[in-house]
Amino acid sequence: MSVGMDDNLAVAPARKVVALSGGIGGAKLALGLKLVLGEGALTVIANTGDDFVHMGLHVSPDIDTLVYTLAGLNNPETGWGRAGETWSFMSAAEMLGGEGWFKLGDGDLAMHVLRTAQLASGETLSGFTAEVCRRLDVGATVVPMSNDPVRTLLRSDEGWLEFQDYFVRRQAAPVVHEITYQGAERAAPADGLVELLTGDTVDAIVLCPSNPLISLDPILAVPGLREAIIEAPAPAVAVSPIIKGKAVKGPTAKMLDELGFGADATSVLHRYAGLIDAFVADPRDVASLEAAGTDVMVVGEDIMMTTLADRERVARRVLDAADQVRAGERVAHRLPGAA
Amino acid sequence: MSVGMDDNLAVAPARKVVALSGGIGGAKLALGLKLVLGEGALTVIANTGDDFVHMGLHVSPDIDTLVYTLAGLNNPETGWGRAGETWSFMSAAEMLGGEGWFKLGDGDLAMHVLRTAQLASGETLSGFTAEVCRRLDVGATVVPMSNDPVRTLLRSDEGWLEFQDYFVRRQAAPVVHEITYQGAERAAPADGLVELLTGDTVDAIVLCPSNPLISLDPILAVPGLREAIIEAPAPAVAVSPIIKGKAVKGPTAKMLDELGFGADATSVLHRYAGLIDAFVADPRDVASLEAAGTDVMVVGEDIMMTTLADRERVARRVLDAADQVRAGERVAHRLPGAA
Repeated sequence: MSVGMDDNLAVAPARKVVALSGGIGGAKLALGLKLVLGEGALTVIANTGDDFVHMGLHVSPDIDTLVYTLAGLNNPETGWGRAGETWSFMSAAEMLGGEGWFKLGDGDLAMHVLRTAQLASGETLSGFTAEVCRRLDVGATVVPMSNDPVRTLLRSDEGWLEFQDYFVRRQAAPVVHEITYQGAERAAPADGLVELLTGDTVDAIVLCPSNPLISLDPILAVPGLREAIIEAPAPAVAVSPIIKGKAVKGPTAKMLDELGFGADATSVLHRYAGLIDAFVADPRDVASLEAAGTDVMVVGEDIMMTTLADRERVARRVLDAADQVRAGERVAHRLPGAA
Repeated sequence: MSVGMDDNLAVAPARKVVALSGGIGGAKLALGLKLVLGEGALTVIANTGDDFVHMGLHVSPDIDTLVYTLAGLNNPETGWGRAGETWSFMSAAEMLGGEGWFKLGDGDLAMHVLRTAQLASGETLSGFTAEVCRRLDVGATVVPMSNDPVRTLLRSDEGWLEFQDYFVRRQAAPVVHEITYQGAERAAPADGLVELLTGDTVDAIVLCPSNPLISLDPILAVPGLREAIIEAPAPAVAVSPIIKGKAVKGPTAKMLDELGFGADATSVLHRYAGLIDAFVADPRDVASLEAAGTDVMVVGEDIMMTTLADRERVARRVLDAADQVRAGERVAHRLPGAA
């Protein structure tokens, strides 16, 4: 055998990590995790509560954002959709009287058209998504939380709204009074997810900095997934989607406030109580998080992920936190430079 | 009343014409007819035997070619699809493992996606097509021959093939032994077609220079349509798709030959025997057509429609022939300049 081959064989086995994620914000951390862990080590459980049928096509916005981001095909300006996209379809569809409020790019359409055809022919959403990950060299596994339909519905001051109707068409403007995940109680986790989470091959479970109400709660509402995370031998680490009372992106703070939960990182920490071992938040939020009285390890880190380096840095901090928890080092948090 | 209004009111009522057509070749004459007749006077009965479900989408190639051509949106180089088309969908679909042999342009996709969604929600193909004609200012009425599925199947030296499989994927290479129009015997003409054809508002019925075997025969195979043309008070005029033994476009001559009908204009004339009153063909084919012994009026005209002026010229010749038949002037044909 050559020295080169010995070198290859000597590489340490990759760490396995499972992340729970919605779309844009969560996908940033997922990409950081993939880059830090290397190819094949990351499984992302994607929210499908935002899925909907539009123009007869099955659209899975969070799965697609994760796939495009992890494959490096994403549009870095919007956070959703593909880079270098064209828009001939939308323009022609509007000429034909089609609705224009939900933008389907020409290249992006391939995902929706093929998914719709595959589902109609009996393929599962997880089967289709696995094939997409393989074809696009995603380097990670994206798995829908369930192959059964779960639909996030919001009761607002304008009545019950479907998710995309609220989020895209109405741009999250209506005041939200209640959220429900229709179908969740009858949904089964996608094949293998519970076994993966509760098995001993996973080093860390990561709750990405997605909107807890509309991105992670739908995942946790699928019977068996919350329980699996609680039972899992691996530590669970969440990253706050809120910095100093403001959402990094989107209506997270507004929704938390409207529902009476409090628009701050502490409110997110409380939502994940009993589920997580560590919580990574902006250093400026650490004092109030610790003051809230929690046995969760609070980790201060700049969690704004603007650059690729930011994403890798936050991913490393998350994995370090998991290591600390696993090693029983649940030490009181020290702000950087506080000695 | 103003003089201007009197002038408008004095305009002669437009002639009403019904044409039967397949795709590219027929659409050229249909456009000529529309331009000669003016807006709103032309109804085109479109072949739907080529329709198929591709990637889960209901594709109606002949309807779309007619709509794009009549609306001036067509790609003049290919004859099918839209001008200025982009191809992001196909490229992305092939990356995802989708089939690449049938080209669906990005703008063109709007037609298929919206049609599929509308049909799934209970709309008829004729209802959807009428709305498309209205939205795109087609200036003519395109009507599918039937709202019921009819599928052209070809028995070849490679076994039974679906139409697009034979025509596009195999580029009409296999030798054809038999053609059938599956479902035709149970199909009903689209609403209003029989009444239109047999009523007294139509001045001419035109069989466009489409492939008789795979474009016009499927239309004539829908119970009631052939009979309506025979019973119609309006004269029926066909234009030959064959010039001096060669098809103007596509495999018409090859197919006629393989099926033993003879690859010439006379064989097309014989197929339409009992159905038409006049047959417009290349002047060089007139002698042999007349020698075949027919009571159909044979009209010699340069039927190559390269330019827009060609299309209008052939359309005028067709309408003149209908006038002659209606006026009882079924005189023996004279070649131009033969005195």
